[in-house]
Amino acid sequence: MNSKFIVIEGLEGAGKTTAIQTVAETLKQYGISDLIFTREPGGTPLAEKLRQLIKQGIEGERLTDKAEVLMIYAARVQLVENVIKPALSKGTWVVGDRHDLSSQAYQGGGRGIDQNLMASLRDSALGCFYPDLTIYLDLPPEVGLERARERGELDRIEKESLDFFHRTRARYLELVAANDSIKKIDATQSLEKVRADIRHTLLQWLQEQ
Amino acid sequence: MNSKFIVIEGLEGAGKTTAIQTVAETLKQYGISDLIFTREPGGTPLAEKLRQLIKQGIEGERLTDKAEVLMIYAARVQLVENVIKPALSKGTWVVGDRHDLSSQAYQGGGRGIDQNLMASLRDSALGCFYPDLTIYLDLPPEVGLERARERGELDRIEKESLDFFHRTRARYLELVAANDSIKKIDATQSLEKVRADIRHTLLQWLQEQ
Repeated sequence: MNSKFIVIEGLEGAGKTTAIQTVAETLKQYGISDLIFTREPGGTPLAEKLRQLIKQGIEGERLTDKAEVLMIYAARVQLVENVIKPALSKGTWVVGDRHDLSSQAYQGGGRGIDQNLMASLRDSALGCFYPDLTIYLDLPPEVGLERARERGELDRIEKESLDFFHRTRARYLELVAANDSIKKIDATQSLEKVRADIRHTLLQWLQEQ
Repeated sequence: MNSKFIVIEGLEGAGKTTAIQTVAETLKQYGISDLIFTREPGGTPLAEKLRQLIKQGIEGERLTDKAEVLMIYAARVQLVENVIKPALSKGTWVVGDRHDLSSQAYQGGGRGIDQNLMASLRDSALGCFYPDLTIYLDLPPEVGLERARERGELDRIEKESLDFFHRTRARYLELVAANDSIKKIDATQSLEKVRADIRHTLLQWLQEQ
């Protein structure tokens, strides 16, 4: 089997970190141990600098929605071209903490950036590069934000209104429904049940490859 | 007369700084003293941070052409939305050291980024916002680079090959030929003649407004 790019998606507090551990453990049990982890925005020195600007903003300057999404795509291009594609081409698997679906959901759904613009940006920046499998952890924003709050300080994006996250989740759900390579997991379940669901989904998918 | 956005364009060493002074002096003689100056990429705290990343790159990481152009547009959106449009709307004139034409010439022509992508990025980021007048200082790259070299250290973009700058100039000339709001000045002439040409071009344009 060729190496694959597997992405974990979901709102803040959905349990992405645990999911990534579960994916890595499951892959190892399946005999796949040559793997790297990425996070977005970020994952290269330049992309991490952009992440900081995106997450924290600049004091006294309004970060426009368009500049935000352009910076996110700049970071993504750097990560895909300099890290993900080279890894995949030498047989290394890649497990990503967020990827393009986040932009479609947060910037497209949450911020309401025009869908044609979002699609045109995606195609311009990434061409025909897509994750092989995306696992989307679904839960109501209220639940996720409560968990995120318990973890400590919230960043610029995590401070958005509840409406923003409802729009983001709605766009996630639309895209999940339209795309067979995205698998939805109910993240309101117990941690053990979520982990079991991820393991089961991933193993079933691996057997189909 | 409403306030206007006037842009100076040209290759490195074409004499943009002197041209900007000449434009400002001419505007003042014409009775227009409420004006600000911008430079691109840059001109807001965030855009200046992006400028630094674009100009210097990150050691050990290849800056892809696509990430470069996405960052340039992110910086441009910040400048247009937070500085240029607010200035124009309260009656302040804006004189810009470079604007979108530079991206079309350097990234589109020099780097060879697909023209459809360049057009789609421009429209997505800026909509129907255009400079009122652009003065393009034309000269062969050999002449400009020699002048730039005399000024001191060259940045990442100024270190490009001569071919890159020939492609950039060729795209500038194509766009100048296709657009009535761009006026070409022969920048190989003596400094006094260049200044006189700029003054003459600007005064003629002002009388037409």
